[in-house]
Amino acid sequence: MVIIMDVNAPQENVEKVKEKIFAVGCKPHIIVGSQKLAIGLTGPTEAIDEEEFQLMDFVEEVLRVSKKYKLVSREVKSEDSIIQFGEHSIGGKELGIIAGPCSVENRDQIFTIAGKLKEMGINFFRAGAYKPRSSPYSFQGLKEKGLQILAEAKKEFDIKIVTEAMDSDTLDIVAEVADVVQIGARNMQNYSLLEKCGKIKKPVLLKRGMAATVEDLLMSAEYIVSNGNFNVILCERGIKTFETYTRNTLDLNAVPVIKKHTHLPIIVDPSHGIGIWEKVPAMSMAAVAAGADGLIIEVHHDPEHAMSDGYQSLTPKTFKKLLEKLEQLAPIVDKELKLLCEK
Amino acid sequence: MVIIMDVNAPQENVEKVKEKIFAVGCKPHIIVGSQKLAIGLTGPTEAIDEEEFQLMDFVEEVLRVSKKYKLVSREVKSEDSIIQFGEHSIGGKELGIIAGPCSVENRDQIFTIAGKLKEMGINFFRAGAYKPRSSPYSFQGLKEKGLQILAEAKKEFDIKIVTEAMDSDTLDIVAEVADVVQIGARNMQNYSLLEKCGKIKKPVLLKRGMAATVEDLLMSAEYIVSNGNFNVILCERGIKTFETYTRNTLDLNAVPVIKKHTHLPIIVDPSHGIGIWEKVPAMSMAAVAAGADGLIIEVHHDPEHAMSDGYQSLTPKTFKKLLEKLEQLAPIVDKELKLLCEK
Amino acid sequence: MVIIMDVNAPQENVEKVKEKIFAVGCKPHIIVGSQKLAIGLTGPTEAIDEEEFQLMDFVEEVLRVSKKYKLVSREVKSEDSIIQFGEHSIGGKELGIIAGPCSVENRDQIFTIAGKLKEMGINFFRAGAYKPRSSPYSFQGLKEKGLQILAEAKKEFDIKIVTEAMDSDTLDIVAEVADVVQIGARNMQNYSLLEKCGKIKKPVLLKRGMAATVEDLLMSAEYIVSNGNFNVILCERGIKTFETYTRNTLDLNAVPVIKKHTHLPIIVDPSHGIGIWEKVPAMSMAAVAAGADGLIIEVHHDPEHAMSDGYQSLTPKTFKKLLEKLEQLAPIVDKELKLLCEK
Amino acid sequence: MVIIMDVNAPQENVEKVKEKIFAVGCKPHIIVGSQKLAIGLTGPTEAIDEEEFQLMDFVEEVLRVSKKYKLVSREVKSEDSIIQFGEHSIGGKELGIIAGPCSVENRDQIFTIAGKLKEMGINFFRAGAYKPRSSPYSFQGLKEKGLQILAEAKKEFDIKIVTEAMDSDTLDIVAEVADVVQIGARNMQNYSLLEKCGKIKKPVLLKRGMAATVEDLLMSAEYIVSNGNFNVILCERGIKTFETYTRNTLDLNAVPVIKKHTHLPIIVDPSHGIGIWEKVPAMSMAAVAAGADGLIIEVHHDPEHAMSDGYQSLTPKTFKKLLEKLEQLAPIVDKELKLLCEK
Repeated sequence: MVIIMDVNAPQENVEKVKEKIFAVGCKPHIIVGSQKLAIGLTGPTEAIDEEEFQLMDFVEEVLRVSKKYKLVSREVKSEDSIIQFGEHSIGGKELGIIAGPCSVENRDQIFTIAGKLKEMGINFFRAGAYKPRSSPYSFQGLKEKGLQILAEAKKEFDIKIVTEAMDSDTLDIVAEVADVVQIGARNMQNYSLLEKCGKIKKPVLLKRGMAATVEDLLMSAEYIVSNGNFNVILCERGIKTFETYTRNTLDLNAVPVIKKHTHLPIIVDPSHGIGIWEKVPAMSMAAVAAGADGLIIEVHHDPEHAMSDGYQSLTPKTFKKLLEKLEQLAPIVDKELKLLCEK
Repeated sequence: MVIIMDVNAPQENVEKVKEKIFAVGCKPHIIVGSQKLAIGLTGPTEAIDEEEFQLMDFVEEVLRVSKKYKLVSREVKSEDSIIQFGEHSIGGKELGIIAGPCSVENRDQIFTIAGKLKEMGINFFRAGAYKPRSSPYSFQGLKEKGLQILAEAKKEFDIKIVTEAMDSDTLDIVAEVADVVQIGARNMQNYSLLEKCGKIKKPVLLKRGMAATVEDLLMSAEYIVSNGNFNVILCERGIKTFETYTRNTLDLNAVPVIKKHTHLPIIVDPSHGIGIWEKVPAMSMAAVAAGADGLIIEVHHDPEHAMSDGYQSLTPKTFKKLLEKLEQLAPIVDKELKLLCEK
Repeated sequence: MVIIMDVNAPQENVEKVKEKIFAVGCKPHIIVGSQKLAIGLTGPTEAIDEEEFQLMDFVEEVLRVSKKYKLVSREVKSEDSIIQFGEHSIGGKELGIIAGPCSVENRDQIFTIAGKLKEMGINFFRAGAYKPRSSPYSFQGLKEKGLQILAEAKKEFDIKIVTEAMDSDTLDIVAEVADVVQIGARNMQNYSLLEKCGKIKKPVLLKRGMAATVEDLLMSAEYIVSNGNFNVILCERGIKTFETYTRNTLDLNAVPVIKKHTHLPIIVDPSHGIGIWEKVPAMSMAAVAAGADGLIIEVHHDPEHAMSDGYQSLTPKTFKKLLEKLEQLAPIVDKELKLLCEK
Repeated sequence: MVIIMDVNAPQENVEKVKEKIFAVGCKPHIIVGSQKLAIGLTGPTEAIDEEEFQLMDFVEEVLRVSKKYKLVSREVKSEDSIIQFGEHSIGGKELGIIAGPCSVENRDQIFTIAGKLKEMGINFFRAGAYKPRSSPYSFQGLKEKGLQILAEAKKEFDIKIVTEAMDSDTLDIVAEVADVVQIGARNMQNYSLLEKCGKIKKPVLLKRGMAATVEDLLMSAEYIVSNGNFNVILCERGIKTFETYTRNTLDLNAVPVIKKHTHLPIIVDPSHGIGIWEKVPAMSMAAVAAGADGLIIEVHHDPEHAMSDGYQSLTPKTFKKLLEKLEQLAPIVDKELKLLCEK
């Protein structure tokens, strides 16, 4: 941490800052420039809030030099974290593909889609039983009933279930069915929920908030990890920008940046990231080319009648074509994608 | 709702759209332009999702004409909602001033500040027992112990308590002590929590999310109101922009805009809105000049040693000076501020 | 400037950085922390680009401590700059009010509006002869003919003319007629134009770009001032945010922040800042309450038939009512507004 | 265009709107809903400003249905525009690669880099003689002298030159040397310059502004095309977002979206788009995977001593490795990249 003071600060005020630095267990190192006086701090600076110094007289700025996150950082663990699911994994050489509809609508829909996906060799199935919706008058998901349908599909097709938990009241019942518990973008800074996610035994898929920076996302992951759950998968799903032709702006820069700063896996959601089904394949390819560890894609057998997000869902047919392209792309970026489907 | 189609769409596809319009209980009205074909819908359009039509062939855009919120809109209730607290109120002619420290730190701090504020004629006291923090390593509030201190201060000084609830687990115990339950910016789209706020008997202070539009804020208020609690106070507290010299960008445009679209009261938080104590008085004045129904301001007797947000807190002395200015300003914008303090 | 390196950087690489620091005429000061090694620089750091060091091995970040702008900063000149126009001025105690239509449409329109404004005691008249428009098919202004009309109105009514220059080709002819040359938001970083503005003899009204920070604005002002023209008036006119209910988001935080960092005057354009005429008075009041040195407001005698921006223009009548309110507000914030109009 | 009015608007006001619609040469079509009354317009709506109706009493919103751009739209020309440069082209099957340093620094530097690139089979060379810089104290380019060096390199290596014009004063001399005239992000809405670009005989590379939407970019292209120059290449170079770990946020969504709305070619600048050289290859791959027609990449033989943008420049060696990967990727997305370099 570096504290910047006015170079004309009275000696008395500089002394006060120095005293406070000693008080928090650190050591001050003074550098006098022509316009500014800088005081470097060494010692246990992670625990210090910038605020503690910002208010002191003649202090102009407090610059943090070390990152605020620790456990999720590459500095603490340099090798990639690989989340294992039986013989499959996310975060390693295998390209992880999670597919399925936005919402659980009924048993038939889930069984139809899960069946088609399983045939293509897809092992991770997504579908929401609890749906956060911006209008109280929109379809809010089948809730417990939806979870039960997912539990049945899991048994029937031997697939891993990825589904969202919206609050701590229902986290436990979601975690019972889910192989991966998803935390949605709007809950990325719901700290009570994150803390509880740190105490469950299932991996967590943490989606980036709509206006969150990569650092915000890593701090939210730190909440989960510091509470005991190291199995966190990050997900870039598009951020809010001024653009109006797309639902969100998929930030693929985040992929190589996240891979540099953290050991956690990063996957991409091109369905929400662009929000227009026709362009989902292009963005899926781009995400993998950028180095993503996997994709989470909305697939529906009848998008026109889907209860939510039909507009951004691929049909099994267009999804299959995409998989074939991804299979060609994967080895160029040192990933593997093995499909069962005949072409 | 207006559905825009390609003017060259085959008749068959136009018929499909018309059939779907009838199916949802509405009537289609076709207008053929030179480039586009527009189909206006009349009937119960509130319940229709734009999505339902967006995916149909040759449909290019679906434009919503009516707002999605109903109960909070001026169209449903044209006169201002006034939230009554004994002889005081928020939303009417009286300028509502809520003041106090960011966090409850200890009994002495709360009693010192509450005492000074009460002397000046302040009736609404803010202080957080539960603190949402972006780092899991920062001070998270005194929690239940903090609530207890607030309950004691309430009794001692006869003040209304405004304090934050972070999750549904603690909502009830917060609502027991609080006269107004605050929902923070990061929880503005925590729909589970909003629903539960609709079922409590206390007024809710709903803060605008950092990247939320006014419409998003009104939709979140609609969640609370449609669940049964009409006593919602909206709060503009600054949004995220590219500016780095300030903590947030206080959006005072929102004040007259919100007053036009909804009957709910709107107050302003200049402390978070600019984040620099020296400039809080200027922004407080600006907020009231823009037509705000009140202010929520951080005041601490010893900001330099505050456990959080000291940097943006006024001292009782600077706060008192501000109150004197506000007293002069209020009548120019048809508000009233009555202070007890001698000048 | 502070250079942050990995604490495990080889001595050889630290030496290389030190050598480069000496090479640019500065001195290095090393602080070894637990995770990072910081090197403070003293000497003539203004001329150094952060880039020069960012690429060196083991360098992680380069933090600028001094501001990049000099001549416009309070550090170089602590007292407020007051731009004098005969007996009137902008930047001092007098509240500067600039009013008039968006565009020069014809001689009658200009003379009608200028006449009405002059009667109310308004001394600064705005109207654009050159209009930057986002569509090549929209009205682009009367150009030279418009300037001529302004020149006539200036003579007739003894008013100061504020009008926009869009490029260096026409800067000179604009500057001949104008008392203040306006540089629009889209040209805030048109550096060729800014340089030339530094060489004219007329004051420049520099509008903040739509996505510009306060620092960007000050750097653009530095371009003008460092080229020789010290008479720059800054203008906050709203920035782009996610909000859709308003044309722009008026950033009134910028007012006290700009007043702190620079000696140049800052005025506010509420017409563009909110973009809805009904709410312009509220935002005008807010701007003055926040400490602005003046306002620039669109006024049109027949907004419904205005060729541009009618939607955000006040009529002379609503403008007069606003002036009466401003006259009451001004003394509370230590400003003066003297109107000639009978009430 | 659709005009939305309050359903309770007096008949007299509806008539006024209808009259105005006839007056601008269009026809009104009225639809009466439960909350709103909508009036559809048919006829020559492109020439109408929304503004003309927005201010009329009881009008609540004016929705544009047709796009404002015409000549650049797919509706006017459905097949892709291919810009031909002798045997090479941009916009067709060939993947266009433009490479070179940020700035012309001296003859040696340009000849060294151009020589290395030509050897690899690169035919488009970028380097700036005029450099728009946010500080007046930074290196502003070699200007005319830089152009002369580029002219020599062009002759020596038989390469096409891509270089920036910053203002209309120097546009002609830039266009003499350049094969493609670049318009920088900060000038994307410098309409005077765009108009003049419409009158030159060289193709224009138009960079997206930092806060511009795709529609803004297309409107700026429309300025050039409507003034007579159909050879416009669009360039996505990253937009401003809240992210701080990267220089800009590369918006690759824009690639498939732009290809849908316009026939003009779209290339991507990953160097500015992420701003960190190590991550430029990943983002180059992603851009091509998303469907870009080409790339513009900063390459410098000695980035550590580059006078600008060294931090985001590849060395010829890392660039060559990227080319090899791109060569593998191109056929998967139906593009061709033919390199001369031995591997």
